[in-house]
Amino acid sequence: MEFSLSRVSAEIEERDYDVLIIGAGAGGLSTAVYAVRSGLTALVIDKSVSGGLTAESPLVENYLGFKAIKGTDLAQKFTEHALEYVKILENTDVLSVKKDADRITAKTTLGEFTGKVLVVATGTSHKHLNVPGEKEYYAKGLSYCSTCDGYLFKDKKVVVIGGGNSGAIASISMNEYTAKTTILEYMDRYMCEDAYVRTIEKNGMDYIKNAQVLEIVGDGKKVSGVRYRDRATQEESVVSTDGVFIYVGLVPQTAFLKDSGVELSDRGYIITDNKGRTNVEGIYSAGDVTQGTEAQIATAVGDGCRVAITIYNDLIKSGRR
Amino acid sequence: MEFSLSRVSAEIEERDYDVLIIGAGAGGLSTAVYAVRSGLTALVIDKSVSGGLTAESPLVENYLGFKAIKGTDLAQKFTEHALEYVKILENTDVLSVKKDADRITAKTTLGEFTGKVLVVATGTSHKHLNVPGEKEYYAKGLSYCSTCDGYLFKDKKVVVIGGGNSGAIASISMNEYTAKTTILEYMDRYMCEDAYVRTIEKNGMDYIKNAQVLEIVGDGKKVSGVRYRDRATQEESVVSTDGVFIYVGLVPQTAFLKDSGVELSDRGYIITDNKGRTNVEGIYSAGDVTQGTEAQIATAVGDGCRVAITIYNDLIKSGRR
Repeated sequence: MEFSLSRVSAEIEERDYDVLIIGAGAGGLSTAVYAVRSGLTALVIDKSVSGGLTAESPLVENYLGFKAIKGTDLAQKFTEHALEYVKILENTDVLSVKKDADRITAKTTLGEFTGKVLVVATGTSHKHLNVPGEKEYYAKGLSYCSTCDGYLFKDKKVVVIGGGNSGAIASISMNEYTAKTTILEYMDRYMCEDAYVRTIEKNGMDYIKNAQVLEIVGDGKKVSGVRYRDRATQEESVVSTDGVFIYVGLVPQTAFLKDSGVELSDRGYIITDNKGRTNVEGIYSAGDVTQGTEAQIATAVGDGCRVAITIYNDLIKSGRR
Repeated sequence: MEFSLSRVSAEIEERDYDVLIIGAGAGGLSTAVYAVRSGLTALVIDKSVSGGLTAESPLVENYLGFKAIKGTDLAQKFTEHALEYVKILENTDVLSVKKDADRITAKTTLGEFTGKVLVVATGTSHKHLNVPGEKEYYAKGLSYCSTCDGYLFKDKKVVVIGGGNSGAIASISMNEYTAKTTILEYMDRYMCEDAYVRTIEKNGMDYIKNAQVLEIVGDGKKVSGVRYRDRATQEESVVSTDGVFIYVGLVPQTAFLKDSGVELSDRGYIITDNKGRTNVEGIYSAGDVTQGTEAQIATAVGDGCRVAITIYNDLIKSGRR
């Protein structure tokens, strides 16, 4: 993004804020807008560039108010909106977070920043298959989010790679409007809950077990199939398809919280109450990194609003405002 | 709105849907987009026209992606977006809601509609003071929402009418950036929690008790003051101001749920779990009508997304999909 340089690093002299926000995706930026509008000072820090996963979506059609907008364009709108209120420190890794008596300290690759409170809105990253074609066909028929992109394949064929609960629900949902939905699962059995198994069977959907995906196939411009090996017979096949959805897992970005005392789920998501408060007073969370998230732009934006209003109220109630 | 007639009533022949949505504000419309995109059929019913309270906001600056947009324009964008997916039945009152064995029935002024599930997204209406000038100066310096409109009064003077918790928090928050914030309270004592009292006193804000507001004063184009009577001394005064915020209460629109079995709070808000489920299986809630709401567009849109995804999962888990 061409306006990127203007908001980077070196000019940030102020080190202490009311609200430190880690992550410049939809959740973090919405938090920033609400925090500053309620009179608090805030800084957003991101390990990469502003925009988060929104920027990675080929087309966003489900964030109310935008019928259809490219992910990069929406991410730019989010960023420009937030820049009316805060600075965004890009390309800066947060290494650790520590709560002191009355401040939360974030140690980053650009030194330490402190906040009365800190909001973790670092989101998730997709696990990759790491097979040929996966990178090449990303946003050319290959996606990691059916709720975001599934509807682009109305009346077309899709393959979902990964038959756990997320892959199953993605498949069942897309099967409502696709011509055909096929699921490829590495293990030799159903990896999703019974309720999903029943629906998959009732719908007559293909759930192919023992399928080791070898390659995403295409004509260079878009996806045309998925090549896999049957792990039992060693036979190779290609499923022809218009779309590929990869559901082999998400990784919440919480490694830097290791010594913070913040409670995480088994899978590394941040556990909060229904207002975004973690177990550590002064540390909050919003967006996809939160346990139980729907992982949507709409919910991340709502979470950001909710957590900022909560923070303001909490600061007043504790006499710190 | 000029496209209004095209979506009205008479053409709606289908009476049974997967999801019946009551209320065409941000929460209901976001629910509709997500429900239909996940493969469900849906109908939105509103007692007035589509858009909800969004349409009543003079300027929306805090819904991420839109730096500044007139409420009517944003409401139109929301409506047009939802119309890509559903019909919206306007000017139709829902009179009662009843759960049968496997359907929820909504009795309306246009007959009965049924859904596998029903989402209540009817929002709230503002209580009015019913004093001269209140209607005239609405959106001309007079507002019912500081989080929405307060920032328009940066470095200006505002008066908040109503010193309960909502009025107090609105005042404290606006006092961060206004030149002066004055609170007028009808009762003879502080009507808000101690934490707010302490902050109000610490900030040296005027909290005028025993103030019976008589009139919103202006030059015909915009607000210039609030005339009130001191109920102890009977003396009348005018506080000069640039903005007036009325915080005398909200009324959640839930009267039609009287015999539905849905659990409401003392004040009439719908009690839900953190996914929008009420105590009645098959009845859900989203947006401002939900207990604990932040009453923001951002949270209503997030709620709508969340509840639609929840509904889809619930339908599958119960074998109804």
